[in-house]
Amino acid sequence: MATPHEPKQDRSRATRQRLLEATIDCLAETGWAAATVSVVAERAGVSRGAAQHHFPTREDLITAALEFMFEFRMDQAKAEAETVNAVAQGEGRTRAVVSALVESYTTPFFKAALQVWTHAAADPALRERILPLEARFGRISHRRAIEALGVDDSDPVTHHLVQATLDLARGLGLADVLTDDSARRKLIVDQWAATLHTALNLSH
Amino acid sequence: MATPHEPKQDRSRATRQRLLEATIDCLAETGWAAATVSVVAERAGVSRGAAQHHFPTREDLITAALEFMFEFRMDQAKAEAETVNAVAQGEGRTRAVVSALVESYTTPFFKAALQVWTHAAADPALRERILPLEARFGRISHRRAIEALGVDDSDPVTHHLVQATLDLARGLGLADVLTDDSARRKLIVDQWAATLHTALNLSH
Repeated sequence: MATPHEPKQDRSRATRQRLLEATIDCLAETGWAAATVSVVAERAGVSRGAAQHHFPTREDLITAALEFMFEFRMDQAKAEAETVNAVAQGEGRTRAVVSALVESYTTPFFKAALQVWTHAAADPALRERILPLEARFGRISHRRAIEALGVDDSDPVTHHLVQATLDLARGLGLADVLTDDSARRKLIVDQWAATLHTALNLSH
Repeated sequence: MATPHEPKQDRSRATRQRLLEATIDCLAETGWAAATVSVVAERAGVSRGAAQHHFPTREDLITAALEFMFEFRMDQAKAEAETVNAVAQGEGRTRAVVSALVESYTTPFFKAALQVWTHAAADPALRERILPLEARFGRISHRRAIEALGVDDSDPVTHHLVQATLDLARGLGLADVLTDDSARRKLIVDQWAATLHTALNLSH
């Protein structure tokens, strides 16, 4: 229901989103040390006071940016699953699922998250703050991959091979941080999709 | 041949090694920002002047520490391959090779290297400096894995599955940075080794 407060709330939401997007860009392009509330506010074209109203501390900003990336990625994964289910069958479907999953680890989102994880490794307070987020992200990513592949997670072989596929994707993401690894990555993805398809004993 | 200069050279070598070990410890425990020449020198019990004699810049110190980790890891991989070849056959051997490889990505060395890679992602000068090292490390790690598995790298399926195993190891290493992931990791390694063994069509 429309209220006289809505336009102000909309502006506030838009400001919040601009700050989160600027945080991700700062982290991915200039690294952890440069991603402070004031640098992010400037990049977003938001006053420092307004930025601090939304995110009183740098940790609040960083945690909210991780949550934002997570929600965006899960929406994207859902859309990918629908597309893949509509167009591909058999090994082609497995390859499309593995490829989309792996490519999601080569985005600015992954590069931004890597800056946060690596900093959190030596910062116990930040680490405690992001661990619950990471656990939830891991569980939901796994469930989305299971759904996209159309397999039965109660089978331990299936469960562990899908987990391994997520771990492989993370490793391929890390390999892409310093160089463009896309040509090599395509060959790895094609081979792993073929091996995974056989090992999962998929016929559909 | 002993010369009057040797004791001094020995001391110099020992100082250099202490500095490199302290660099790795600093990076792994306290992260990139804290690993400066003066902090490392203090940790190593070396004067700042002596540290700067060995490593004029922080970049010199960091690059040398990466090289040191790399040489150590390659010596370790060679020793592992000899042990594995002596004790295990069949799938057990494949599992032992994969397990040793993966565990090497969960050490303080990996955690230290991750700090450097992540910082280098947003520091072009450091990135240019470590890329040749990383390329050499990748090539030799691959060759060592091929030798340990006793497989033929000229077969493209073999080549790409061994590459995928190294990428998986990197991903599992990253998953261990914020939490102790060892229990989950063991299940993934066992399943990957079984699937790899079948896919490589190994009978020995």
